[in-house]
Amino acid sequence: MNILKDGTVTDPQGFVAGVAEAAIKKPGKLDISLVYSERDCAAAGVFTKNQVVAAPVIVDRETLAANSAGIRAVLTNSGNANAATGAVGLANARQMQEMTAEAVGCTADQVLVLSTGVIGVQLPMDRLASGIAHAGENLSADHGLQAAEAIRTTDTFTKSRSYEIPLSGGTVRIGGMSKGSGMIHPNMATMLGVLTTDAQIEAHLLQEILSEATEVSFNCISVDGDTSTNDTVLLLANGASGVSISGGADYDLFKQALIDICQELSKLIIRDGEGATKFVELMVTGTPAQSDAHQIANSIAMSPLVKTAFAGSDANWGRIMAAAGKAGVPFDQNKTTLRVGNDGQTWLTLLESGLPTGYAEEDAAAIFAQGDIYVWLELSEGEAQATVWTCDLTHDYVTINADYRT
Amino acid sequence: MNILKDGTVTDPQGFVAGVAEAAIKKPGKLDISLVYSERDCAAAGVFTKNQVVAAPVIVDRETLAANSAGIRAVLTNSGNANAATGAVGLANARQMQEMTAEAVGCTADQVLVLSTGVIGVQLPMDRLASGIAHAGENLSADHGLQAAEAIRTTDTFTKSRSYEIPLSGGTVRIGGMSKGSGMIHPNMATMLGVLTTDAQIEAHLLQEILSEATEVSFNCISVDGDTSTNDTVLLLANGASGVSISGGADYDLFKQALIDICQELSKLIIRDGEGATKFVELMVTGTPAQSDAHQIANSIAMSPLVKTAFAGSDANWGRIMAAAGKAGVPFDQNKTTLRVGNDGQTWLTLLESGLPTGYAEEDAAAIFAQGDIYVWLELSEGEAQATVWTCDLTHDYVTINADYRT
Repeated sequence: MNILKDGTVTDPQGFVAGVAEAAIKKPGKLDISLVYSERDCAAAGVFTKNQVVAAPVIVDRETLAANSAGIRAVLTNSGNANAATGAVGLANARQMQEMTAEAVGCTADQVLVLSTGVIGVQLPMDRLASGIAHAGENLSADHGLQAAEAIRTTDTFTKSRSYEIPLSGGTVRIGGMSKGSGMIHPNMATMLGVLTTDAQIEAHLLQEILSEATEVSFNCISVDGDTSTNDTVLLLANGASGVSISGGADYDLFKQALIDICQELSKLIIRDGEGATKFVELMVTGTPAQSDAHQIANSIAMSPLVKTAFAGSDANWGRIMAAAGKAGVPFDQNKTTLRVGNDGQTWLTLLESGLPTGYAEEDAAAIFAQGDIYVWLELSEGEAQATVWTCDLTHDYVTINADYRT
Repeated sequence: MNILKDGTVTDPQGFVAGVAEAAIKKPGKLDISLVYSERDCAAAGVFTKNQVVAAPVIVDRETLAANSAGIRAVLTNSGNANAATGAVGLANARQMQEMTAEAVGCTADQVLVLSTGVIGVQLPMDRLASGIAHAGENLSADHGLQAAEAIRTTDTFTKSRSYEIPLSGGTVRIGGMSKGSGMIHPNMATMLGVLTTDAQIEAHLLQEILSEATEVSFNCISVDGDTSTNDTVLLLANGASGVSISGGADYDLFKQALIDICQELSKLIIRDGEGATKFVELMVTGTPAQSDAHQIANSIAMSPLVKTAFAGSDANWGRIMAAAGKAGVPFDQNKTTLRVGNDGQTWLTLLESGLPTGYAEEDAAAIFAQGDIYVWLELSEGEAQATVWTCDLTHDYVTINADYRT
């Protein structure tokens, strides 16, 4: 398997991208991103679990339910979320489909739409219309990276990757882009992901693989515990490689590659967490069920006291244990082991049987001072485990979010 | 009912207090607080729900289970939480009981102990011993306020109140003190509360009343969503007023007074939230069950995006709605009404039927610029409701918690 760090959604065969500046964000910034497939695609989507959902989420759910074997385009605008916009917003999202269909020459039910940005403001439909038309005019395999750039909001860097996967019948490719830096949490918080592949897979299999992959990637990251109204991951398979996947070893290889690229794109979001200076991997092992481990890891990842301790390079294991204990999952504190490190390979044991081991404080401080911190909590209550990725909570997070709209 | 803002735990008859500097906190600060009743007390306690609990919580649960009708003293040390201290810590907590019993002249099973401060460090037993002895020597009805001062950790002010309640058989008094400013969240996060009353009530009724009162007070506050290993609220009734309460209107009056003082002491903790500049009351109405409303209010109270918006005086209702929607409680976003204000009486309606009302942005901004903000979310799905109190998330919160141990 071959990872291309500067790979994009247009690396898979038969995909092109177009972009435009429509002044939905500040003028001079790309805010329209169009991904287009020259052939019909099987498509799958995973959406926010928030009760409050944005218009494009409603429209995409409908579109995928009706036409998951014939998708041609994904149109994303940044700068405006089209959320809490009522019937007008819903009509506007459908209008976005129409405009895109006209720009690329397909029908409206072949278009998926994504929006991200401020909530409660109607889309500027005239500017959107000219932006979409312009993006349709510059479709090109060279515009993959710009397509990823155009979906950014508070992101400080562009998140794009592609993989090559040699299968029994030939090589297929997966390309992906994501955006998100604040409001990131399971499940799928202000996070958009668009994945393309030139493998040939039926829509129901594609949905199965995408759901599994997001469960262990996009749903395992937490910047601030908030989930947005717009979060969506889409996967389009156009079959242009001529390589078909229906099961067996090829299916497993493809799924593993999809998990890898989804985890890669997820971790990039954490590394770009608003104000983040630390990347933290939290592994909880030894629980009766996987969901227990996930719940405890999440509780640690969401604790402001833990996250500020990471920011202060403070090896404050008391806060980690208190956050684990409040997750609502029973465990015996006298059987816990807590280890920390910087590479996920070598560990310093801070607690054993729930008690400090007598480690040297300067060794712990040295680990917490690094940019990448790994925390491993073993509970000795079972065989299940889970991993969650998060970041620290810094002054810059407060600065970014106290004045987002001003 | 008479509220005394400078009232204390020694206002009820027959209670005295003693304090000492034992150098468990920085030298020169009170860190030993002893509340003593001249008569045996009925006693009740509510404790942290964290899986990881401190030694004094274990000891107090045992002591109350064995002797809830014969308590004489509550000894609190600040500066050290005696948590994650294993068998040695448990022995030390029992030793604290012995030392206190000797200082006041009762038996060890008549003493409840509380500890708050850093985790994972053993108590300095020699300094503790002389501190407790000294506190026993200066027991006085005049030391109520100092007793409240001595239980502080990062608190910036002392939290103490007392109430006079005229009942059919005469007047009784309730006095209370609390501490806590960070790590405050349902259920009972790094929060200590000690309440005294000179009413005569049986222990099982006292426990019933205290549990009800904490449910709508201490368990409805959230600074940062974290719960500590030590949180405890204790209530001692010594009967010194000669007024007995066993049911009827007196019971209801007494319970309401206890709820009032618990809510008052809870709100003081929020006003003292680490780095807080805003006091926020969140009322969620119109849910099928009270627990639904509580869950949604909590989700809003715990959202870092909402809390930073309060800090920035940003009337960002999109974040409030997104936080409500992620609580896991189903509701129809098209039936929601969101109102904000500064006094809980007059309101500005921001959303109706889930859509912005066309309010003037400067009116909303003026409300969010005040120190006290009231938010009222009506869901139109039922008749239940809940209220939660929280504060904003500021730069100072990060500063305080990034470097707590340094």
